[in-house]
Amino acid sequence: MATKLVYLFGGRKADGGSGMKNLLGGKGANLAEMSKIGLPVPAGFTITTEVCTAYYANKKKYPAGLKKEVDAALKHVEKIMGAVFGDARNPLLISCRSGARASMPGMMDTVLNIGLNDTTVEGLIAKTKNARFAYDSYRRFVAMYGDVVMGVKAASELSEDPFDEIIGALKKKKGYKHDTEMTTEDLKGLVAKFKTLIKDALGVGFPEDPRDQLWGAIGAVFSSWMIPRAASYRQIHGFPDDWGTAVNVQAMVFGNMGDNSATGVAFSRNPSTGENYFYGEYLVNAQGEDVVAGIRTPSPINREKALPSGVNATLADEMPKVYNELDHIRKLLEKHYKDMQDIEFTIQEGKLWMLQCRNGKRTAQAAVKIAVDLVKEKIITEDEAIMRIEPEQLNQLLLPSFDPGAKRQIIATGLPASPGAAVGQAVFTATDAVAWAEEGKAVVLVRMETSPEDINGMFKAKGILTARGGMTSHAAVVARGMGKPCVAGASDITVDYEHRQFTAKSGETVREGDWISLDGSRGEIMLGQMATIDAKLTGEFSTIMKWAAARKQIGVRANADTPRDAQTARELGAEGIGLCRTEHMFFEGDRITAMREMILADNAEGRRKALDKLLPMQRDDFYGIFKVMNGLPVTIRTLDPPLHEFLPHTDEEIEALVTATGRNAAEIKAKSVELKEQNPMLGHRGCRLGLVYPEITAMQARAIFEAAAKAAQEKIKVLPEIMIPLVGHERELILQKEVVDRIAREVMAEKKVRIKYLLGTMIELPRAALIADKIAAAGAEFFSYGTNDLTQTTYGLSRDDSGKFLPAYLSEGIWEKDPFVSIDADGVGFLVETGLAKGRAVKPDLKIGICGEHGGDPATVKYCVRIGLNYVSCSPFRVPLARLAAAQQAIVDSLTAAQTKPTAAKPAAKKTPEKPPSKTSPAKPAVKKAAKK
Amino acid sequence: MATKLVYLFGGRKADGGSGMKNLLGGKGANLAEMSKIGLPVPAGFTITTEVCTAYYANKKKYPAGLKKEVDAALKHVEKIMGAVFGDARNPLLISCRSGARASMPGMMDTVLNIGLNDTTVEGLIAKTKNARFAYDSYRRFVAMYGDVVMGVKAASELSEDPFDEIIGALKKKKGYKHDTEMTTEDLKGLVAKFKTLIKDALGVGFPEDPRDQLWGAIGAVFSSWMIPRAASYRQIHGFPDDWGTAVNVQAMVFGNMGDNSATGVAFSRNPSTGENYFYGEYLVNAQGEDVVAGIRTPSPINREKALPSGVNATLADEMPKVYNELDHIRKLLEKHYKDMQDIEFTIQEGKLWMLQCRNGKRTAQAAVKIAVDLVKEKIITEDEAIMRIEPEQLNQLLLPSFDPGAKRQIIATGLPASPGAAVGQAVFTATDAVAWAEEGKAVVLVRMETSPEDINGMFKAKGILTARGGMTSHAAVVARGMGKPCVAGASDITVDYEHRQFTAKSGETVREGDWISLDGSRGEIMLGQMATIDAKLTGEFSTIMKWAAARKQIGVRANADTPRDAQTARELGAEGIGLCRTEHMFFEGDRITAMREMILADNAEGRRKALDKLLPMQRDDFYGIFKVMNGLPVTIRTLDPPLHEFLPHTDEEIEALVTATGRNAAEIKAKSVELKEQNPMLGHRGCRLGLVYPEITAMQARAIFEAAAKAAQEKIKVLPEIMIPLVGHERELILQKEVVDRIAREVMAEKKVRIKYLLGTMIELPRAALIADKIAAAGAEFFSYGTNDLTQTTYGLSRDDSGKFLPAYLSEGIWEKDPFVSIDADGVGFLVETGLAKGRAVKPDLKIGICGEHGGDPATVKYCVRIGLNYVSCSPFRVPLARLAAAQQAIVDSLTAAQTKPTAAKPAAKKTPEKPPSKTSPAKPAVKKAAKK
Repeated sequence: MATKLVYLFGGRKADGGSGMKNLLGGKGANLAEMSKIGLPVPAGFTITTEVCTAYYANKKKYPAGLKKEVDAALKHVEKIMGAVFGDARNPLLISCRSGARASMPGMMDTVLNIGLNDTTVEGLIAKTKNARFAYDSYRRFVAMYGDVVMGVKAASELSEDPFDEIIGALKKKKGYKHDTEMTTEDLKGLVAKFKTLIKDALGVGFPEDPRDQLWGAIGAVFSSWMIPRAASYRQIHGFPDDWGTAVNVQAMVFGNMGDNSATGVAFSRNPSTGENYFYGEYLVNAQGEDVVAGIRTPSPINREKALPSGVNATLADEMPKVYNELDHIRKLLEKHYKDMQDIEFTIQEGKLWMLQCRNGKRTAQAAVKIAVDLVKEKIITEDEAIMRIEPEQLNQLLLPSFDPGAKRQIIATGLPASPGAAVGQAVFTATDAVAWAEEGKAVVLVRMETSPEDINGMFKAKGILTARGGMTSHAAVVARGMGKPCVAGASDITVDYEHRQFTAKSGETVREGDWISLDGSRGEIMLGQMATIDAKLTGEFSTIMKWAAARKQIGVRANADTPRDAQTARELGAEGIGLCRTEHMFFEGDRITAMREMILADNAEGRRKALDKLLPMQRDDFYGIFKVMNGLPVTIRTLDPPLHEFLPHTDEEIEALVTATGRNAAEIKAKSVELKEQNPMLGHRGCRLGLVYPEITAMQARAIFEAAAKAAQEKIKVLPEIMIPLVGHERELILQKEVVDRIAREVMAEKKVRIKYLLGTMIELPRAALIADKIAAAGAEFFSYGTNDLTQTTYGLSRDDSGKFLPAYLSEGIWEKDPFVSIDADGVGFLVETGLAKGRAVKPDLKIGICGEHGGDPATVKYCVRIGLNYVSCSPFRVPLARLAAAQQAIVDSLTAAQTKPTAAKPAAKKTPEKPPSKTSPAKPAVKKAAKK
Repeated sequence: MATKLVYLFGGRKADGGSGMKNLLGGKGANLAEMSKIGLPVPAGFTITTEVCTAYYANKKKYPAGLKKEVDAALKHVEKIMGAVFGDARNPLLISCRSGARASMPGMMDTVLNIGLNDTTVEGLIAKTKNARFAYDSYRRFVAMYGDVVMGVKAASELSEDPFDEIIGALKKKKGYKHDTEMTTEDLKGLVAKFKTLIKDALGVGFPEDPRDQLWGAIGAVFSSWMIPRAASYRQIHGFPDDWGTAVNVQAMVFGNMGDNSATGVAFSRNPSTGENYFYGEYLVNAQGEDVVAGIRTPSPINREKALPSGVNATLADEMPKVYNELDHIRKLLEKHYKDMQDIEFTIQEGKLWMLQCRNGKRTAQAAVKIAVDLVKEKIITEDEAIMRIEPEQLNQLLLPSFDPGAKRQIIATGLPASPGAAVGQAVFTATDAVAWAEEGKAVVLVRMETSPEDINGMFKAKGILTARGGMTSHAAVVARGMGKPCVAGASDITVDYEHRQFTAKSGETVREGDWISLDGSRGEIMLGQMATIDAKLTGEFSTIMKWAAARKQIGVRANADTPRDAQTARELGAEGIGLCRTEHMFFEGDRITAMREMILADNAEGRRKALDKLLPMQRDDFYGIFKVMNGLPVTIRTLDPPLHEFLPHTDEEIEALVTATGRNAAEIKAKSVELKEQNPMLGHRGCRLGLVYPEITAMQARAIFEAAAKAAQEKIKVLPEIMIPLVGHERELILQKEVVDRIAREVMAEKKVRIKYLLGTMIELPRAALIADKIAAAGAEFFSYGTNDLTQTTYGLSRDDSGKFLPAYLSEGIWEKDPFVSIDADGVGFLVETGLAKGRAVKPDLKIGICGEHGGDPATVKYCVRIGLNYVSCSPFRVPLARLAAAQQAIVDSLTAAQTKPTAAKPAAKKTPEKPPSKTSPAKPAVKKAAKK
């Protein structure tokens, strides 16, 4: 423990600074920093976080010497502020606030206006010539102190907020509507009544001695570190209890001392657009809370943009000197912090005081523009610009969103499964979605859950809403793949297919044809047609992506099943297709009928006949994709889902199949029963299908090679990579490889072309990872981690069913994050690294990628870079995000390398960005880190 | 390659011996051995397996020198047998047979009577004075040679067996019914016709030169090593192709040369009962094939047991000298091979010839009796006796079986899911099973598949038949647990609940009330009421088990859910309960109603109310089990299955629940829909229930501790071990442990007793194994591997659904064994060993067991001993088997230790058998083998 317990700030200097967040908390460190660089910060001091830790370690006793240091610090504050704490004529008022290392907004306690009592209030009146202001401050202080420090609310059995009740009674008696109608005398009367209330409730009186008040407040702030809401906030965010909070004691300044006083918040640039002008709002004669409460509408601080109607003056107009000072501070802060700043200020009787500054939150668009502009202004480097952008934010840029000004009539919430804004009329079947959409209607498809046969309806819908399923449920995965907004697992709604409606827990019923709006980014379901704003890709976005591309050391591919998806992926920077799910091709039009014919066939002969019908369709699909991806690799997975997923469920569908195939309905139903599985996830799927029905694999291989041959003849550069799913034993790969290689030889002989191709496997079962050496030795030319299924099996956790207990698991702190969203390094990661080490032990240059949903999660992308994968593959719309995350990790790695090799001048510059796999050979980044055993 | 290609035998000496099976094959090695110990073996020679390997390696050419060695060997045979191969007056006839290292019955080719042609047949007639015999041998030889060596059948397009057609035509023309009616002339005519057929079919004639015949036969035998049926037999049994087969060329002897000739088979002890007397049958004037064909009924060789009616003489009566010689040989062979022998012999004109001897196959009862008797007779040691018994055989001893003499009218087959014989009337619902059984009827429960709510019906039924599910389906697991016969996954039958009947593919329909018989050991379903034989536990069984107990180094516990199961387990030698599944207790009587009330409750309050009803029932169950297991540990698993398994499905059940709870049917159905899961195996189950509903865990803990307190007060020694299922993250264990420990403290305080208990976890998810160190550190006091679920998740394989592709996987050689039956060492085993190493790294004396179905598989038990587990737990009826397997591994280990430390006199005797965990402390066998990384 540092021997110094209290750090001063104010008077344009400070003991601390922004580098001391661990000791002083974020707030204290920034206040010190602002002081140190000469900004007008109300003087104060910070009691360190270590005092908090010691306080708890030592039965809630303060370390020796604290009192003395606080006393000395208070003297210092009095001196700078020219007022004396507790003085009858010139009283100093102070605030006492928490401040942990990381922001924990609203979780801990704050006490304002400390120092007021029946004596000092008179001094305040004399000093400010504003009795109403003084008594208003006093009554607020007594109530706040009585509540926060003394615990009146908690002790009161009769009322939620007994202070508020007293005010309510007064207003009723006097016929007031607003607090502002209360007179000075009213406020003075409240002070007396509040003190009586405290005495009656607790048996002890309100402390009149300002020093008692101060120590009471300090104790309350330290104690609030351990209150349940703060403790559970820490648990959720993974902040350890032993961080402790600092306590910031600071001189009060008032923006409500008349028309030469004001308060405001500002951003050094526009946080919505990123435009480089001073953006902010202020209110004359007001306190910070008035801005927040929204009772009065604040005005812009300057005329950079047209003023809103009804506004005639700006801060620049009304207080030009103060405005200029503020504008100067704005520039100084940006240069100092090298980032856009969020500023809180108060003007007390014409004097500007800075209360807070921090890096400002911003929209994705602003983040990108600001980062690029700061580079142009030579304030930050390209590396820094890349590090500034939260990859997850990029998603916002690519998708439409709701007009931020629009009112949201939220009737239920679910998981934000696929971002973006969707507005449409509710329909309850995929068939209806298609039919209505073909009539030109915008529809939102509402289902209990979706299944592969809903694919057409999902494609035609503007958005998808499901009552069941998690972030990686079918609906979520497919929707993200399509870049279509989706709210999944909305357990607050009950879907009633029979009456074609759903009911929200809030009581609203949405019937077929009713308009609803989905916010897939927030997981909100709203009534009516909300206005949306289209995404715009700016030049700054391209610039950032170009910088990222120059740095990243890993390939980024996309999961795409159609030429259209492939086109989107390529436009967004994908360097290949990492997962083309062939089964998604089987649901359209005639295909599903041929597929069902195949499933119903009694023998290999019958299956082959049906497969022959599918062959040309699959071939055309592959040809289309090869054409789009010309020169880039395309990884095609052979059939994966269990066959029952393709069978019809409704009587209408069965009837249609009877007509199309001549089979009878009883046969079809019997086949459905026969194929039904207890746990389809662990059932007859993946390569298990291809092994029992090799003719399916043969057909798919033929479609791939015939398409490749056709493309090759047209000088399209095709790089097919055929991927066998769900391998758990090396012999599965050997047997499927035999089929694929045989067909490849046949087609190449027939078409007289040579097609280079790779054959590899998904690693998506724990066993596959554990025997990866055998799989590599058996002939796998690449591995692709299917981390969705690998997570399901490693955890024994169905992604479709985990929604029921996921919230409890997150709130109990069992899982920090949904393991389907961000990779679990301890369990799934261990297997990924084991598989990698074992595979590369046999084939040192084995190409290894990841194609689960995790491939689009920034933390996972960074993890993949660190362990040395060759590529990640994700939904097309997450490609830019993945590329950015990859670049960020490369920058971190180069910094680490620079630190570990201080003699090497510029190790980062020596790195060669990965060659796109399309050029000559698959990328082979060195293994960054030895895989764990 | 050895330089010697041909090994002689005969004339009471031999080049080879029984230790040379790899070189000479099993048959050749045994023939040599018998010769060497002075038995009358027809002389011959063995061409080594290395010749076969060289033959295939060298484009089907024989190694240089083979011809010379064969010629020399033939000379030797001629000399011993006093006849000359191909001689017109004194012809030697020979046979040519395959013989690989391991028996491959009927897979390869054999040629008999080589050496006959139009000249030598006359010599044979002159020598035997039996023209009919000579021509019968000749025509058989020509047909066999034409088929096996020359390939006439394969070349013939017109007929399945053209030789047989010729015989058929002859018999038709002459009006014969049997072959025996054919005259010498007829047979002679056949020879000519056969030769014409060969010439016509192939264009080349039958080879008259005996040497050409011999080389043709040798080539045919070597070639038959690679024919498809032999290749696939090897693949299934895991025999490598490069073993090769030997070829045994041997002088023919004939038991059909008149009334002073005979042929027979015998066992040195009774192979059914194990009784120590010479047991065998013979036929006068017959060949071996006559005994097999069953046209004539053979007679016993002696009068040890009463003769069957119609039999008046035995070999001992008819040929006392030969019999005495044979009896002498019997004793000599037993002493030599130290085991019961299966003998084939032929008497040719009064002279005894030994054709084969090998260790005889025997029933379980005989195996046990013979092993114990051989120890008493000081022929083998106790260790050897233990090693002699196939653990799997013990199962037969504990269960009733069908009368081996009864006729089996098999209508369908399924998996032999739980052994034993069951006879009963078919019923199609668990409710009917209960109702009918209560009327005193014997029933067999027939279901598509069973679910936990069928438990009562299963218990009341004599046997269980399901159309779906594998060896570890619910039906199979529960049936084995109950020791009840079960045939599962009988995909040949179609169950029709509506009409209460099932139809077999063979066409038979079995209606409710029809009698059927199930053979759970063979997986056969038979019509009618078959006679059964009850199991008898002999004194020899106890002796073997006592010997095993003294040697085994691992604890053997049982999986038991009721006091009755616990009693059985204890009687069969269980040293504790390794898995008590509490959920099985929830299906009886009122309990299920209370359970359903709990599930339907809207909040924790409602759940607690319902749980309060369950508490006394669970407490009584636990008390009963503790009482039975007095002094032995009882591992109780908290609730595991998903809640939807407990909800009613049929309208009647829902109606009953409406009546019992006052809930309405719609609510109940809605709850069913709400709880429905896509993959229940990976859903809301295991500790995930206890975490979301801690009150369930609390109730179960209270029931356990209240029961333990009651028992302890009655001086019963209770050792509860509470086991949390499906842990995948250490925090799950921490949170559940908090609940259990709190309740334990409460109950101990209330009842004023101290109860020692352990709290541990199942390791049944890959992630649990991978973070076993964290789980151990989080407070787990024991691990129990749930290898059923661990196999499901490691392989991504549902045991309920794998039945559809399991057969293909086994026949394709992807899996050697069903991974749910015998543990998969590469994948699941890797995780088991990782978890063990990580757990023991944190807690060196961590108690670790296994409680999956694998705990009753001998290979897995041995594996568990090798890696150093503390105990295995299995179905009560598999306890003896597990104990025996454990002893066998201990013996192997002590032999290995003896070999690696040749100076230590008797290392095996130094080992201390494991103390049963009941006595003082949990068993801690030393880790036998360092766990793999």
